Amino acid sequence: MARYEATASAPVNIACINFTSSRYWGKRDTALILPTNSSLSVTLSQDHLRSTTTSRADASFEQGDRLWLNGNEEEIKAGGRTETCLAALRKWRKEVEDKDTSVPRLSEWPLRIASYNNFPTAAGLASSASGLAALVASVSQLYQLPQSASELSLIARQGSGSACRSLFGGFVAWQMGSASDGSDSLAVQVAPKEHWPDMHALICVVSDAKKGTSSTSGMQKTVATSTLLQHRIKHVVPERMEEIERAIAAKDFDSFARITMRDSNSFHAVCLDTEPPIFYLNDVSRAIIAVVEELNRASVVQGRGLVAAYTFDAGPNAVLYALEENMPVVVNTINEFFPQTLEFPDPFHMLNKTATRPEGFNDAVVRQGGWEKGAVSRLIHTRVGDGPRKLSDEESLLTEAGVPKTLA
Amino acid sequence: MARYEATASAPVNIACINFTSSRYWGKRDTALILPTNSSLSVTLSQDHLRSTTTSRADASFEQGDRLWLNGNEEEIKAGGRTETCLAALRKWRKEVEDKDTSVPRLSEWPLRIASYNNFPTAAGLASSASGLAALVASVSQLYQLPQSASELSLIARQGSGSACRSLFGGFVAWQMGSASDGSDSLAVQVAPKEHWPDMHALICVVSDAKKGTSSTSGMQKTVATSTLLQHRIKHVVPERMEEIERAIAAKDFDSFARITMRDSNSFHAVCLDTEPPIFYLNDVSRAIIAVVEELNRASVVQGRGLVAAYTFDAGPNAVLYALEENMPVVVNTINEFFPQTLEFPDPFHMLNKTATRPEGFNDAVVRQGGWEKGAVSRLIHTRVGDGPRKLSDEESLLTEAGVPKTLA
Repeated sequence: MARYEATASAPVNIACINFTSSRYWGKRDTALILPTNSSLSVTLSQDHLRSTTTSRADASFEQGDRLWLNGNEEEIKAGGRTETCLAALRKWRKEVEDKDTSVPRLSEWPLRIASYNNFPTAAGLASSASGLAALVASVSQLYQLPQSASELSLIARQGSGSACRSLFGGFVAWQMGSASDGSDSLAVQVAPKEHWPDMHALICVVSDAKKGTSSTSGMQKTVATSTLLQHRIKHVVPERMEEIERAIAAKDFDSFARITMRDSNSFHAVCLDTEPPIFYLNDVSRAIIAVVEELNRASVVQGRGLVAAYTFDAGPNAVLYALEENMPVVVNTINEFFPQTLEFPDPFHMLNKTATRPEGFNDAVVRQGGWEKGAVSRLIHTRVGDGPRKLSDEESLLTEAGVPKTLA
Repeated sequence: MARYEATASAPVNIACINFTSSRYWGKRDTALILPTNSSLSVTLSQDHLRSTTTSRADASFEQGDRLWLNGNEEEIKAGGRTETCLAALRKWRKEVEDKDTSVPRLSEWPLRIASYNNFPTAAGLASSASGLAALVASVSQLYQLPQSASELSLIARQGSGSACRSLFGGFVAWQMGSASDGSDSLAVQVAPKEHWPDMHALICVVSDAKKGTSSTSGMQKTVATSTLLQHRIKHVVPERMEEIERAIAAKDFDSFARITMRDSNSFHAVCLDTEPPIFYLNDVSRAIIAVVEELNRASVVQGRGLVAAYTFDAGPNAVLYALEENMPVVVNTINEFFPQTLEFPDPFHMLNKTATRPEGFNDAVVRQGGWEKGAVSRLIHTRVGDGPRKLSDEESLLTEAGVPKTLA
């Protein structure tokens, strides 16, 4: 009996130019997840971070579509993001079936989908992006859809915004588009990983224990009040997208870094300028910024270029970008000032490398005595990586019976 | 022998609409301290916070002008702010002397000036504003200058920017002006304290122990990069100045509060949007914001108005504005969540008042267990107050011999 199944893995991506979700501001469209501006990201290596998804279609499956994340069954809510993606994928499968009546009518059969992240949700990494991308990759492979990655990104976008950028490797732009139905709001590859393979990243997972919970009475309105947002959307981001694409094409790290840091600060400035204000950065985030700014300052004074760039998304975690040659100083500096509670696996063997900070680096930018252990809970060192992968049947996450394999 | 001496006291003022110093951005003029936008403040009561200055002119004083702050002699740097003010005051005195040759030529005599703040510098309160205003008030009284308070504010402005607003009581605007010589950049009174006497303020002095020192190699450029700043200057602030002046005239606390909080957030947003970014708020500041936002949200849900407004200047200290009737809930809430190391003097006897928080107030906005003692080091409860006062000779800070009295 033929088994109709496909297993795919997809990467995490980290924005250099952040979009602002219409969920918070300027309702372009909340249901379709149409952003108020374009965005650009670096896809990270699946050697370190990936979501893997197996999807199987079988007419005999009972109870309709079922989904498991990391072994736990999740409800596929009616009208929710997963259902929206599956419906869109089924629609395109149906087109395949209508054109060729000899192919099995997979679109009509229930699906069993098991997904697994090789990084913990508690790390605060956006697992929804890689997870949704893996789901779309897996099901589109199962359905043997003819659409391109950019077209598939239309579906991933409706699942979880930035998931659309995880359908490509390397450097990826999510073009905001202008059509009200979102048909032109999709991801395109700006450059493949092979173009700039020495782009590395250090993810600093920051503890946010000090933060209370947001007020969630259900009655709180987050009003789209930021006048600075309008300015950012109309003027600042469009220019920056062009600049950063040029910087990537030219492998100009100085420009890439400068634009990335400025956009992160601009994004968080706009968050602060809302009513009520939204704070993602905390004191540890600030301290990491201070260290990177000082590394850069000292390096520039020595006549060299920028060492690293920081960027922060909707949370206190820092992602630092640096070229491979500068990662020793970045990793060792961060590791020294921010001792972690989880041991750093150090996949690139940075900790035994000589790594002198630029002369004139002012240690006092970090408070006396440094930070307490766990202020940064863990570090993840990775680099630019490839897009979704088709995995072999041996890597299936489902048993014969169609339930998740028990993962050790 | 006639003694030519005058003693004056002047208040602290706290901005509701912040100006951005040309020292950091958009060099309008650094020497003349011309701001990039207008600003508005509330003058605080001298019953709680004040600078007192005695100035005496005597032909027999040796070693030229001398200045003491809180008993310690300070150098009057050539070309510095104090010297600039004294030169300007002498110029106007000379005009008096040239018109009436019978008056003593005080402008030609050395000055001895003793100043004293009744609050510690470590409190992080802007003592330069009240101090400079007291100096200008004292010397102008000594010199019997005919100029108005607004004209004198031109001189105070050159001493220390926001000092110009401390030359009035009540609600004060610093009109940015447009003349390149700064002759129209001065303070005016928007409303006297008697107009809205139940405007109270709670100053929360926040510990900033976690912050490292800024990089001060002397080579760091703070580039005027913020595009959001330009937008703030040109569009946002001018409208807000008009709105807040209307709110004050109408004693509309809701509008006053909303504008104050939004402007504080907008100011700090622009600080974040510079290169390198400037952070004044820390985690404690954020936590205070969260508490005030939640008090306000819960109150509005109950059909009542806003309870309080927060505002932060160039540092982590919070100033909370609230009407007298709401101060019990504000003081008790802050005191509960942020235990201080210095005992709160509680001049208005708030701590024994019943103060129920609005129903539905979500305690979880503050982290579990609350904040450690000293995160907020002290609280100062005060209210809107009057402008500079002329004090009697009994309050002189100088001995017969012309040196500071020893203050207990």
